[in-house]
Amino acid sequence: MNVLQNYVCGRWQSGSGATKTLHDPSTEAVLAHLHEGGVDFEGMLAHARQKGLPSLQAMTFAQRGEALKALSKLIHEKRDELIAISTQNGGNTRGDAKFDLDGMTGTLAFYGSLAANLPQNGIWLDGDSIQLGRTPRFSGQHVFLPRPGVALHINAFNFPAWGMGEKMACALLAGVPVIEKAGAASAMLAWRIAQLVVESGILPEGSFQFVAGSVSGALDLLQPLDSVAFTGSSRTGALIRGNRNLVARNVRVNIEADSVNAAVLGADVDIGGDTFAQFVANVATDITQKAGQKCTAVRRIFVPQDLLADAQEQLLERIAATKVGNPADEAVRMGPVASAEALASVRAGMAQLLAVSDALCGGPQPVFDRGYFVAPTLLRAKDANASAIHELEVFGPCATIVPYSGDAAEGARLANLGGGGLVASLYSDDKDTLDCWIRSMAPWHGRLWVGSEKTQGQALGPGAVLPGTIHGGPGRAGGGEELGALRGVLFYMQRTAIQGDRALLGKVLGEAAAQG
Amino acid sequence: MNVLQNYVCGRWQSGSGATKTLHDPSTEAVLAHLHEGGVDFEGMLAHARQKGLPSLQAMTFAQRGEALKALSKLIHEKRDELIAISTQNGGNTRGDAKFDLDGMTGTLAFYGSLAANLPQNGIWLDGDSIQLGRTPRFSGQHVFLPRPGVALHINAFNFPAWGMGEKMACALLAGVPVIEKAGAASAMLAWRIAQLVVESGILPEGSFQFVAGSVSGALDLLQPLDSVAFTGSSRTGALIRGNRNLVARNVRVNIEADSVNAAVLGADVDIGGDTFAQFVANVATDITQKAGQKCTAVRRIFVPQDLLADAQEQLLERIAATKVGNPADEAVRMGPVASAEALASVRAGMAQLLAVSDALCGGPQPVFDRGYFVAPTLLRAKDANASAIHELEVFGPCATIVPYSGDAAEGARLANLGGGGLVASLYSDDKDTLDCWIRSMAPWHGRLWVGSEKTQGQALGPGAVLPGTIHGGPGRAGGGEELGALRGVLFYMQRTAIQGDRALLGKVLGEAAAQG
Repeated sequence: MNVLQNYVCGRWQSGSGATKTLHDPSTEAVLAHLHEGGVDFEGMLAHARQKGLPSLQAMTFAQRGEALKALSKLIHEKRDELIAISTQNGGNTRGDAKFDLDGMTGTLAFYGSLAANLPQNGIWLDGDSIQLGRTPRFSGQHVFLPRPGVALHINAFNFPAWGMGEKMACALLAGVPVIEKAGAASAMLAWRIAQLVVESGILPEGSFQFVAGSVSGALDLLQPLDSVAFTGSSRTGALIRGNRNLVARNVRVNIEADSVNAAVLGADVDIGGDTFAQFVANVATDITQKAGQKCTAVRRIFVPQDLLADAQEQLLERIAATKVGNPADEAVRMGPVASAEALASVRAGMAQLLAVSDALCGGPQPVFDRGYFVAPTLLRAKDANASAIHELEVFGPCATIVPYSGDAAEGARLANLGGGGLVASLYSDDKDTLDCWIRSMAPWHGRLWVGSEKTQGQALGPGAVLPGTIHGGPGRAGGGEELGALRGVLFYMQRTAIQGDRALLGKVLGEAAAQG
Repeated sequence: MNVLQNYVCGRWQSGSGATKTLHDPSTEAVLAHLHEGGVDFEGMLAHARQKGLPSLQAMTFAQRGEALKALSKLIHEKRDELIAISTQNGGNTRGDAKFDLDGMTGTLAFYGSLAANLPQNGIWLDGDSIQLGRTPRFSGQHVFLPRPGVALHINAFNFPAWGMGEKMACALLAGVPVIEKAGAASAMLAWRIAQLVVESGILPEGSFQFVAGSVSGALDLLQPLDSVAFTGSSRTGALIRGNRNLVARNVRVNIEADSVNAAVLGADVDIGGDTFAQFVANVATDITQKAGQKCTAVRRIFVPQDLLADAQEQLLERIAATKVGNPADEAVRMGPVASAEALASVRAGMAQLLAVSDALCGGPQPVFDRGYFVAPTLLRAKDANASAIHELEVFGPCATIVPYSGDAAEGARLANLGGGGLVASLYSDDKDTLDCWIRSMAPWHGRLWVGSEKTQGQALGPGAVLPGTIHGGPGRAGGGEELGALRGVLFYMQRTAIQGDRALLGKVLGEAAAQG
């Protein structure tokens, strides 16, 4: 029996205290245990500060970028082994497992390649030199320098590889050591990846540590220039953001939480055209991919009354063709949800939604005798304004069609009832409709994905988080922002205005600061 | 007797509940009252959302910029009347009053002028268009749009004009309505300015409201896209940041709090030169200007042992020449602190510092029979590492000399013990010293001010907050960031990634998004 260990202060060690059991969610077979407690966080933070930080900061951006590329290559080389773990402990189909793993390796490689744009001397200039006095002699220059602290990364169970890769790529490129906590239910994959990272010696000692159990004890020990990045429920997110120590010390916190993502179909869309086809394909994918366990998955589908019958019919057809079962079987297209807890939560959420909607397919009833399976479920709202529809994220293969008039502003109003989202997908070829949607919906969302005739065959769907554009959203979505190319690295940097004699500053900051 | 009213939902009305009395801090004469409670915050927020927000957002950036310029002109025209209020209720000398008022009008005019750089169509592009698919057709463009919420601004008592102007300039330029709360002790000036703003009709109704009393009841009513900007103590700052509703809804919070600012004199500095002269002049100014009630004022003065005798002598000479008294007398160079509470807090703080330092001049003892006066006080630390020196902000005319070896890295280490500052001023002409200081101190500070031979006569001192460079700092300083030209406006905007067909997005976002 595997016992997942923590990588603390340069060695692997078992935790202690309460035990969590990890299962194969398809068979309920026990795969491993982990211990929630027993981690010496004081030692871990001191190790990161005393060993990891100086080593990372002694490297140039270019050297740290090379390390990220090497990590990407290393993990990609173990892809088949890792896919097998992802299927076994995560219930992922081969496609789902690749989505997670290739997301991680792609993101690490992407950030590795960004290092080429960053300054040799390590002083990242922000904007031009600004004249501050009566003459240009006294000037100001904003710079970014790495925050000399530790990054605590609390990852979610749904993307054990990608979620960790996304966070560590940005911190390590900045020069900030990381402590990665894995989501417990699917921690075997993150654990194995952590083993590979440590064994490779690619990262300097102290710059990467790993915890399989709880990290709540670490929050009280963080210092002003440390940071926390969290992906998970808004309830836990609020506990972290409101943590007394983090509040008192102004520790930076980035939260990516619940999001009741919307897809909005425009009244201009022709049911025989490519825009409609993308709408159907993307929504069906979002319901079934990863058994709906994506923070970006569509939960609310706004369909003009005139297009309702066709949209329902085509979505139901797609969903019916999705074979559900143990993803070890290659014919299977949708696996179980990750754990017994996840299953119970999905069923309870569906029951709440069914109080204000009708089931068009699926529902909370058991699918097989064994395993955490749930049927792909499409609901239709009885009342477009019912709060449960807009506020409850059922983290499984479940979405609700919300019929609306087809008026663009009404569609946007309903979508914004989500109270802040990671992404909304908009389907229209009409400039005025898109203008209305972008102006009214952008401030409520971290990302808007526009499907139109010309994007057919060109675009990854709205559920994919691409490293070049930001990931996060206001309000219910957590208020955070990750990725977005270099934007994501800035979370780990401090911006400072340097004021003084322009020529003298130029000598220290680099010549760019003496121009402008 | 004046009773300061609140401007709520389009009319001036008195508060109710507990009364606060405003005094002339030089004479202790009672000038006015205000009531802490009785404000209908629900109504106020609804008014801002329903009236102010649509009116502001219907204006272009250029129109909002014109409004800011008009406000600047309006307030400048009333300068003499406002200086008199500032002297009477704030205890400010004419110079101190101008510093506050010209800071406000300068900042409003500066932000008014920035509008010319902002897009006509209101969609602010962030960076270039990014290729996201296999071909350039599927692309991403980050945009900033105003957050459709309300900005609650909680201002400090020390800069009733400038502090309010700084916050409202950024929010109003973004298109976000404001509720301005004045610091109670000196609220007469903010109240009179608010009257001028309202009477002028320059801003659309609902975009500017004013509260003289408490706004803590408003915090529980804020919604996800609202924001809070606070200037004041770190204790109150932590209460705001940790407020349950703000945490749960991910309301944006910017905090500018205590800062035990450092001045560091380099070992290379010649006591006969211009760099040393600036050091002495700036430190003496920071101790006495506004009776030391500046969030940017130097509190810790790091002096190499070799320069200690000269630095002490010259500072004491400057301080001794500062005439203290009622600023209604034009010969006076330093007035009282703002209130009886402020005086008690300064005296208590000085007593704490005197446990770990010696007084070179001044101290907590009474200066006159009447008024909230305190003598300009220069202390010298007995132990450079004593925590009170680095952690206690005495918000009055008081600073502590901390002798150090002259080693640049040691100076930086000691300065960073402040745990995060708004500004540090560095005096050196040595490139290696400055390189060491900038690399090690920048991440702990929002701003570094470098004094060198060539800045003599060219530079405003480090205590001045200029709108072109950011104001704020990590850790103890609150973790926030204001001003910095357009950077300060972004707090009121939401960044969103728009993904789709590049040509179609170009039509909606503006042609720039179709290039890149």
